Parts: sequence; C-alpha cells; structure tokens
Amino acid sequence: MAGSNKTESTPLETAHFPRHSAAMDATQHLQHAAVAARSAGRILARSSAEQRNTALHAMAGGLRAAQSEILAANAADVAAYDGTAAFRDRLTLNPARVEAMAKGLEDVAALPDPLDRTLADWTRPNGLRIRRIAAPIGVIGMIYESRPNVGADASALCLKSGNAVILRGGSDSAQSAAAINAALQSGLTAAGLPTACVQVAPNADRAYVAAMLAGAGLLDLIIPRGGKSLVERVQRDARVPVLAHAEGLCHTYVHAAADPDMARKVVANAKMRRTGICGATETLLIDRAIAPSLLPLIAEDLRALGCDFRADGDARAIVPTMPAAEPKDFDTEWLDAIISVAVVDGVDAALAHIARHGSEHTDAIITADADAADRFLRGVDGAVALWNASTQFCDGGEFGFGAEIGIATGRIHARGPVGLEQLTTYRYIVTGNGQVRP
Amino acid sequence: MAGSNKTESTPLETAHFPRHSAAMDATQHLQHAAVAARSAGRILARSSAEQRNTALHAMAGGLRAAQSEILAANAADVAAYDGTAAFRDRLTLNPARVEAMAKGLEDVAALPDPLDRTLADWTRPNGLRIRRIAAPIGVIGMIYESRPNVGADASALCLKSGNAVILRGGSDSAQSAAAINAALQSGLTAAGLPTACVQVAPNADRAYVAAMLAGAGLLDLIIPRGGKSLVERVQRDARVPVLAHAEGLCHTYVHAAADPDMARKVVANAKMRRTGICGATETLLIDRAIAPSLLPLIAEDLRALGCDFRADGDARAIVPTMPAAEPKDFDTEWLDAIISVAVVDGVDAALAHIARHGSEHTDAIITADADAADRFLRGVDGAVALWNASTQFCDGGEFGFGAEIGIATGRIHARGPVGLEQLTTYRYIVTGNGQVRP
Repeated sequence: MAGSNKTESTPLETAHFPRHSAAMDATQHLQHAAVAARSAGRILARSSAEQRNTALHAMAGGLRAAQSEILAANAADVAAYDGTAAFRDRLTLNPARVEAMAKGLEDVAALPDPLDRTLADWTRPNGLRIRRIAAPIGVIGMIYESRPNVGADASALCLKSGNAVILRGGSDSAQSAAAINAALQSGLTAAGLPTACVQVAPNADRAYVAAMLAGAGLLDLIIPRGGKSLVERVQRDARVPVLAHAEGLCHTYVHAAADPDMARKVVANAKMRRTGICGATETLLIDRAIAPSLLPLIAEDLRALGCDFRADGDARAIVPTMPAAEPKDFDTEWLDAIISVAVVDGVDAALAHIARHGSEHTDAIITADADAADRFLRGVDGAVALWNASTQFCDGGEFGFGAEIGIATGRIHARGPVGLEQLTTYRYIVTGNGQVRP
Repeated sequence: MAGSNKTESTPLETAHFPRHSAAMDATQHLQHAAVAARSAGRILARSSAEQRNTALHAMAGGLRAAQSEILAANAADVAAYDGTAAFRDRLTLNPARVEAMAKGLEDVAALPDPLDRTLADWTRPNGLRIRRIAAPIGVIGMIYESRPNVGADASALCLKSGNAVILRGGSDSAQSAAAINAALQSGLTAAGLPTACVQVAPNADRAYVAAMLAGAGLLDLIIPRGGKSLVERVQRDARVPVLAHAEGLCHTYVHAAADPDMARKVVANAKMRRTGICGATETLLIDRAIAPSLLPLIAEDLRALGCDFRADGDARAIVPTMPAAEPKDFDTEWLDAIISVAVVDGVDAALAHIARHGSEHTDAIITADADAADRFLRGVDGAVALWNASTQFCDGGEFGFGAEIGIATGRIHARGPVGLEQLTTYRYIVTGNGQVRP
C-alpha cells in the first residue's frame, strides 16, 4: 500500500511463511508454506549434488553456531513439560546431542546422490530413447512427536533427495523445533538455497496436523513418526499419500529343520537386543516336531535375559512355567521384554498365523531346509522376509542405506526402510529426432 | 442357524460378495469384497506366471462363450440409456468388441511376467544378502465410467500382476459390467483361481464410490479412469493411495534453434493426430526469435488440419488471423481441435509458463541445440519430458509396456504410463547364516 511501512515490517523471509496470527488459521498457514515449498523444491530439483551437500555442511555449521539458542529454547520446553521422566529425557538436548545432530547432517552429505540415477534406459523400434530417471518427490510433510533431533534428521534426508519439507513436531518440543529450524535455515541461506526448503509449522497449533492430512495438492507425501495412535490417525484420515508403519508385529518362525544353536542365538537377539524397536520379534512360532527339544532351551535363554512369555496350550505343555496367552496377545506389539509363543504345524500353518496376526513388517524363518525357506519367503506378505537372521536387521543402517527416515509397511512406492532412494520418485526423459506417432 | 435353510440359499460363491440387499449397505459390501479379495490376492501372489496366464486364456474363453449373455445385458443398458449419441456409442458392445476384449486378455497373457523380478541384490559386510523383489500390490479398486471394456482390460492387467481387483463401473453400464464379470469369473474357476480375484461392485449403488474412497486398510490403491471431475473427486477425497491423472495439459515448446520442418511436423502431430487423448498438446510455446518465420507456417499446417487457435498478443502480432486468447485459455485442456499459442523468450520463460499452467503430464521441446534441450529436460517437472518428438507418445503401448491401465501424474510410486510393472510393488528377501544384530 502506498505510504504504508508494510514492506519494512514484513521482511522477505516471512513472506513465504507468515508468522502465526489470529487472522491466519492452520489451513492458510499450510497453503502459504506449501506454495513456498513447491517453489523452493523446483530450485532444489535443479540443484547439483554439490550444492545440496554444501548446504548440509552449512546447516551443520548453523546448528553448532546456534547451540546456545537451541539449548535455551529446549530448556524452556523442558521446564514447561509435565510428564514422564522417559519422555523428558527424549525431549532434553545437551551440547553432545546438538553436536550429534550436526554430525548427522554431515553424514547425510557424505552419502551417494539419490537423484538423476538412470533406473531404466531402452530404445523403441522407432528410435525413441526412453530413460526413467530418479527425481525428487516434491513437498513432504513430516509429522513427528517428542525427540527434537527427528526434525534435523528429516530435514537433511529431504534436502539431500531434493525435496522440500514442512515439519510439524510435537507441541512439547515447539520452541526447540523452531530454534533448530532457524539454525538450519541460516545454513540454507549461507549456501544460497531458499529457506522454504525446510519449514517448521507453528507447533502450538494442533489444527495444523488436520490441515496437513487434508492437504491434497499441497503436499505430495506425509511421513508420520511416532506412536501407533498418531500413525493410525494419519493413515486413516490423510488425503495425501503416507509412508509409515503403525506397528511392527514381527514373527520369528523356528522350523523343524532349524539348527538348534542358530535358532537359540537368533531368537534371543530378535526379541531381546532392543525390545522397543519396530523390528523386534513379538511372537515366536515353533514347529511341533522340534518344540519338545528346543523350546525349553529357547525359553531358558530368553528368561535369563529377563523376558516374560505368553504361550499357547501346546507350548505350555512343553514349558509349563510360561504364563498362558490370551487370544489378543498374538495381536499385541509388546515393545517390551515379553514374547508370545505358539506351536505350529509346518510352514503353511506359520504363514496362516502371520497372515492373520502380522503387520506386514518383518518376519523370519530359521531353518536348514532350503525348500521350506523358499516356501516361507515366497508366502509371507510383509515388507521384509528373512531366512536365518534376526528380525532386528530391518533397519536402514543395517540395509546399507546410511540413514532412514522411517519404515514403511504400506503397499505402494516403498516398503521396509525408507532411505534416500525411497524419498525419490522418477520421471521419463524421451529423446527423438522428429518422431511423430502414427 | 440350526434348522434354517440358510446354507441352501447362500451358495459358496456369494459368501465372499453377497448380493446387494437393503440390509447391506455399500460399506458392508466393500468390506466383504475386500476381505475376500485380500485372501484371493494371497493365493494369486503365490501363483506361477503359468497359472495366471492359463487363467487369462480361460477368461478370454469365458468372454467368448458368454457373448450372447453379454450382448443381451449390454442391450438392456443401451435401451435404458438416455444421453448423447457419442456416449451411447462408447457404451454399445457388438460381437467384434467382445472379441476385442477377449483378444486383449490373450495379449496380456503374452506379456512378460512382472512379478518376482529382482530389482536390486546386494550383500552386506556381515554376509547378509538383501534382494528387492517385485511383488503384487494387493487389492486394487478401479473406478471407471462408460466403456464396458475397461473392466475387462483392468481385470487382465491386475490378474497378470498378481493383484485382486474390485471394479466399480458407471451405473449406465451396470448390467454389461456384471455380465462381463461373470464370464471372467467362470474363466478363473476353470483355471482353479478364486473368483474373488476379480469382483464387480453393485453399480447401481453410488454410495459404493464413497465407500471405496474411505477404504483405508481395505484397498491398497485406487485407479480412477474417467472425466476430470470424477478423477479430481477421487484425488481430493480418497483416503487410499491413488494413481491417476486429472488432465493432460501438455505443452510443445519450439525453441529458437528448432529445425523448422521437424517443428511443423511434430507440432501438427502432437496437436491433431488425436485431439481427445491426454497426451495431445494443448499449448504451443514458441521462441520470439523464430516465431516470425515459423509460426505462420505452423499455423497454416494446423489450420489445414481443422485446428482453431487462442493466441497471445505477441503471436497475434505475427499471425493476426488467430483469435485472441483469454488468460484462462492457457489453463484449459481443450481435448479438441483448438490450440493455445504463446510467444516466449527462451527456455527459462517456457519452463516458467509450464510450471504455472501445466499439469505435470507431458511436455516437449523441439530444438537442435543440445544444451537448450538439456536445460529444458532437467527443468520441466512432469511425468514425461520429450525432446524432438510428439507428446502423443505418452502411452503405455508406445513406451513398449504392451498395455496400460492409465497415466499417472501424481508424484509417488509410478508416473506416466501405468503398465504391469507399475502395478507391482516390492518386498525384501534377506538371507543369512545365523546373523544377529550387534
């Protein structure tokens, strides 16, 4: 407006993501953010791997330079937090955790460029050469809870893969997320990339999640990271594609021809290495033929590691000290030192149990019989099927992806660990010399 | 219930898809259908390519054997239809069209098996071998209008790729769709596969589309085929992933360094070969440097083919006989013998126009300058970018896919023509020798 001082009070960088105000609701906010992200994403898509890596290093520098601001913002979040000690610990940052975030950005910079890979290349009889090329997805919405470092990690993976990201963290970590985002954006500016590549939602506004879920046309993909109820809500309500897993109800099936020592070692690891991760085994299936000799040993191993049991009648007939399972126990993701145990009659029975109770995440067979393994690996329907290995290997790092943004148990685009490659899509480049279609 | 004759009046094949009744609404219907489809899909996923091909041949035989029933059902649909002659023609079947459907199934049987392809294969330092293997998506919902053959084509592509499908055709072709589906199911039965692999919704029930769009967890993917308003509704409201295109607002950009003869030939084909397909060019962009000499010739070619124009001021300064464009014309998918024309200043201006007005479908550059082509091909954001070829090549058949179920302009899973490969997802098979995670 002529004569107003509007341009002075509205610096350029807020134009793409206006500060929260009563006059602007979550939907308007998201629309502004998404338009800016789309435009920033187009610049990212044309950037070189070198530019994006330079930006990641500058963002790491930004985090280190802003350490005191980040810790102060985090201290305010922690002071306002009124909940469990475990959650408070996950929420709390310290200099080592800030440094770990910065190091994480540098680690992502060192990974191979996921863009511009030629995924297929063929020539048609008319001379047209068709290439399928890896390309950024576009604008990703990330909805997460608790740990403030998730925002930095997700920002790095999205930037490296040429995607703009809009982050909506938990309200408990709102001030931390804003401070981290400001530091990351300072790095983007230093590297000559638009700050709208990495934006953070006004966390206090819970309506923002609803706006994101309704954001067809604004967001190309939503990645939720958090508890089962959050992820299930996103999966149920989103009008935008979602990559996620609501739970990991993973099975280890010990076949009749399993090597007993291998089975003991793998089951103990699959259940007890870490009980809180989604790749932890929740249910042990064991063949009737081998259960009498092997189940007592496996149970002893697990008990020595502090594991409790929920066993069906056939298993309790062999190891009577195991508590009895209720039917719902076989549908329960324990995420704890508890394992459900059932005796089954062969591969088909194991597959039927997994089809009924599993979550299409990760399931393993332990056997020395290659035919049985083949039948199991073909018949199981989840993202990852293992033969003679621990289910806890379902992890981006263990797959060699370098880093992951999550695990997907949906059926399209990507399944299993979601790393940089899975954050890309493709497009076709077709080259000719004047061909017309007959 | 003891003493009732329920089992007599409920033959087995209706158990998985009960006939429509007042007591069963669309949501219940879909739930039954989807559970049966999930179970049938698991059988399909374990079937061999030979089994699936045998089924496709049996389904083709089923169509031929049921020709008189199909034509009678179709005659009833046509008699009840009260609309345009063009739509009536698309709705009407005859012996040749039934034979073409049957032949289409056999053509799909002859295509390479899209399942069990090894997409990646690597071994980790700990000895774990990780393979990424093509697998069926699961249960696909197909929502389509008008032409009854779409149901048969989609059934064939889904079956070949190991997916169960639930078809919801237009209410105008309800009886045709039911008769075709019965014939296809008879082929499935003959081949020993469950009839629930290919199910058809009770078309009269419009609530069925809403149930499908809300079917998170029941359907893994929805593919809509039809007019822009149908597809946009599905894209806006679906809580299930969608592969589709709402429109193809395709551009051909004639660069300053274009070969004039090639440009004339390609533009004429891109616009006028068939004006009603989504890969037809809707807007011509031409560089200011070449427009004075070339635009009159292109306009003459197009006019001779019956094409009308909507031109911006700069283009009308060169060819004053072209009618003036309104701003909205550059956002209009004509699907008709009309072309929007704008003069631009170089590659970046062309890219900016396409980013603002395009539909991320297909765009082409005509140029002899490889650097300009590279800049355009990198900078354009749609599913397909062409250099020196007609946009009408955006087609599964022309890409060598053998058949397509549609064209996708979304950003995940698949973009461009959706053929058998794009109807698959992947899963991981990991083989070890007792590895545990440290």
